Amino acid sequence: MSKEDIGITVAKDDDFSEWYTQIVLKAKLADYAPVKGLIVLRPDGYSIWESIRNTFDKKFANNGIRNGFLPVLIPESLLGKEQKHFAGFNPEVFWVTHSGKNKVGDRLALRPTSETLAYTLYSKWIQSWRDLPLKINFWNTALRAEIKATKPFLRTSEFLWQEGHTVHATKEEAEKEVMKILEIYKKMVEEELAIPVTTGKKSEKEKFVGAVYTTTMEAIMPDGKALQMGTSHFLGQNFSKPFEVKFADKDNVEHFAWQTSWGVSWRLIGAMIMTHGDNQGLVLPPKVAPIQVVIVPIYKKEEDKSKVLSKVEEIKKNLEPDGIRVYVDDRSELSPGYKFNDWELKGVPIRMEIGPKDIEKQSVVIAKRYNQEKSSLNVTEIEKIPQMLDEIQENMLNAAREQSMKNTMNIVNYPEFTSKIESGGFFKAAWCGKVECEEKIKEETGADIRVIPFGSDNTSEKCVYCKEQSASIPIFARGY
Amino acid sequence: MSKEDIGITVAKDDDFSEWYTQIVLKAKLADYAPVKGLIVLRPDGYSIWESIRNTFDKKFANNGIRNGFLPVLIPESLLGKEQKHFAGFNPEVFWVTHSGKNKVGDRLALRPTSETLAYTLYSKWIQSWRDLPLKINFWNTALRAEIKATKPFLRTSEFLWQEGHTVHATKEEAEKEVMKILEIYKKMVEEELAIPVTTGKKSEKEKFVGAVYTTTMEAIMPDGKALQMGTSHFLGQNFSKPFEVKFADKDNVEHFAWQTSWGVSWRLIGAMIMTHGDNQGLVLPPKVAPIQVVIVPIYKKEEDKSKVLSKVEEIKKNLEPDGIRVYVDDRSELSPGYKFNDWELKGVPIRMEIGPKDIEKQSVVIAKRYNQEKSSLNVTEIEKIPQMLDEIQENMLNAAREQSMKNTMNIVNYPEFTSKIESGGFFKAAWCGKVECEEKIKEETGADIRVIPFGSDNTSEKCVYCKEQSASIPIFARGY
Repeated sequence: MSKEDIGITVAKDDDFSEWYTQIVLKAKLADYAPVKGLIVLRPDGYSIWESIRNTFDKKFANNGIRNGFLPVLIPESLLGKEQKHFAGFNPEVFWVTHSGKNKVGDRLALRPTSETLAYTLYSKWIQSWRDLPLKINFWNTALRAEIKATKPFLRTSEFLWQEGHTVHATKEEAEKEVMKILEIYKKMVEEELAIPVTTGKKSEKEKFVGAVYTTTMEAIMPDGKALQMGTSHFLGQNFSKPFEVKFADKDNVEHFAWQTSWGVSWRLIGAMIMTHGDNQGLVLPPKVAPIQVVIVPIYKKEEDKSKVLSKVEEIKKNLEPDGIRVYVDDRSELSPGYKFNDWELKGVPIRMEIGPKDIEKQSVVIAKRYNQEKSSLNVTEIEKIPQMLDEIQENMLNAAREQSMKNTMNIVNYPEFTSKIESGGFFKAAWCGKVECEEKIKEETGADIRVIPFGSDNTSEKCVYCKEQSASIPIFARGY
Repeated sequence: MSKEDIGITVAKDDDFSEWYTQIVLKAKLADYAPVKGLIVLRPDGYSIWESIRNTFDKKFANNGIRNGFLPVLIPESLLGKEQKHFAGFNPEVFWVTHSGKNKVGDRLALRPTSETLAYTLYSKWIQSWRDLPLKINFWNTALRAEIKATKPFLRTSEFLWQEGHTVHATKEEAEKEVMKILEIYKKMVEEELAIPVTTGKKSEKEKFVGAVYTTTMEAIMPDGKALQMGTSHFLGQNFSKPFEVKFADKDNVEHFAWQTSWGVSWRLIGAMIMTHGDNQGLVLPPKVAPIQVVIVPIYKKEEDKSKVLSKVEEIKKNLEPDGIRVYVDDRSELSPGYKFNDWELKGVPIRMEIGPKDIEKQSVVIAKRYNQEKSSLNVTEIEKIPQMLDEIQENMLNAAREQSMKNTMNIVNYPEFTSKIESGGFFKAAWCGKVECEEKIKEETGADIRVIPFGSDNTSEKCVYCKEQSASIPIFARGY
């Protein structure tokens, strides 16, 4: 295999799309499945998803949310019970028509999302105020046939996600839940994946079909395109009425319940790759890295081998009690240089090199992946590694924040909007609140309202499109 | 709600099937989905699955197995690549024919199992001996349309499971892996779910379609029916040849690889319910119980409330550092008796009752779920609770072992076989090894060869059916 086959062959700045795809495939995160638009996760990719899942599970549990399981098949009649919702998903639904040689009666949809199924059950499970709040999360996949250009993690016809569905006795409690979840999402994404996000509401046009309103967290990618990172919906009683999710209150009067639903998907992995990766490959934030420290033993003479390997094992054993995920690359017949490239491509946060000279000097060589810095560390200071990983994590978030700020602009007039849109970015621009302006802007520039940030209400400006009084200052961008 | 609505209304001995279904529904483990043959897991049911998954994940990781993700859609052409395998699953496959309004080209199967998909990818991922062994496990669902009577956890058209797929350079290594996995399965089921199993091989007739041979673990349920608890298959080169899973050895010569696949499903939860449950409801082994200790505070006078509740909190705090999962049932307006029944139905291993008199005596009342024993424990002995849970776990396995032994019989002649089969059980009976006898027995008695236990080779007996020389002493039974 030539070096070209192994490493990334295009620069991030030159061909972002090709660069991204090469990282996904060459760092062995994912691969294409035989059906167009579907991907497979290899262990290094799935392990990141497991880490995301475990973090959320803890945060969900602390918030009184438990996990459940829903089947993938939903009868067509059920899916059609909330009409707007159905119309929104209908074009992308995969339909099962046969089992074996037999035609099925009511066609079966592969779950595009589970509101209709979950709430059919919730209406059975909820009888009185004692059964509320009901808060269940489901880790599964959703299936939506993608006809546009597909891309691993970003646009696939089946994707791993979690969908949470909660039911509350009061509107206030449900709305609080919507915000609590969005806060959990934001914290997780910023603290674990080191990606800064902007939270706020979606416009009426962009909200989830069936929701009263949708809150969202959005991030700007290095290529200037926006990525929706997760949404938390206030459903009001839009579903509780058709699905009869009712409860008897303490006074024994029946009420329709108030509901929320919310989800994040493996898009988060795509965002992480785009935000932190560089020309050498993947760069993993320490908190989600399957391997945090890789140790490469270095020796030429056979006589040094056992000395080096035993030192390597000693250091590994020193690190593990701190919960550090360490891997020793003792593959024979591969040069240290080959191994360095390999682990750089895979994005391991810290590489440690140990050879006979290092042992003599009682030190090890440390190479940090995110900034390519090399330094020497005394073996007595090995205990500093956890702290070093924390610093890397923090620095990666800071760097991403800076990058994101550079990509965020205040746009005051429409000519500026149209001239700058080609190079991308988050455009903060005043908007009158009318869907007509939103649609015209989309039509003429390809940019959507990604998010109306909390606290961005503003009536003292003029709409960037129609020049009438503004209602808010949303963020516009072309998106994934 | 009347008491009948809440509790189990039939005895385990009177109507086992109805008893089982009532436990599943009334202990809120699962519920029926709108599509016949599909179920939904509620948090208490899913939490048991999570516990099973976490235990396996640790054991798999220790054995060098990592997790991955495969999509649910497999093209018909791919599924048909191994003919016997395809023929075996074909009648139960759900077919996707449309996405939105468009017909899909090659019909898409919902994964009945993923050998064909996984090995298409493995053939790309494996090039040299360095890439071996490749050991990946997938936690997902399998879909097989069930036409026979369905039953939660035991027979459903979609079921949660794990499927592991490994590739090895040598036959020996692959066969060792098959056995290692079976050992992991057995240990897990016996140690965590407290269900004794018999391991061995399936007969040629009963093996997995496409395997060279199938190893299995089988359990006998209290109603005398056998349940297959998990299988580990040696695939030989049956798939590596059609799917071209090849590797270049150190000498650069290409070889077809040797493969294994293996799986357990949520049937394990069904087995656990049947094995341990009683007329009051579910009985959970402590290791998988979502709640291990439930504390019911008892007071009649409002003035006792704060004293009792603060004692309860104190004891809860004492237990939690030991990793005990404790829940305080402080629901108002419900009598202690109602709560006792509720937690018995839900199978919580230990119930603790604390009232003003207990506080005076510096003690608490302990009720063990599995044997209904009530005793008093001095508050200074609260630290004994973890040990008590271990004893319960052990005693439950012992009781199940005894029950299983009672249900296991040596059968020496066919009239005995046919007369006793109605009352069920594991029948150890000599067999000549011919499929004709196996088929005749199945036809005439409904009993299959469940397992040919390891070490049961025996040529000194006569076949229970044809009276010719025996080859082994398998276990026959009617099964789920």
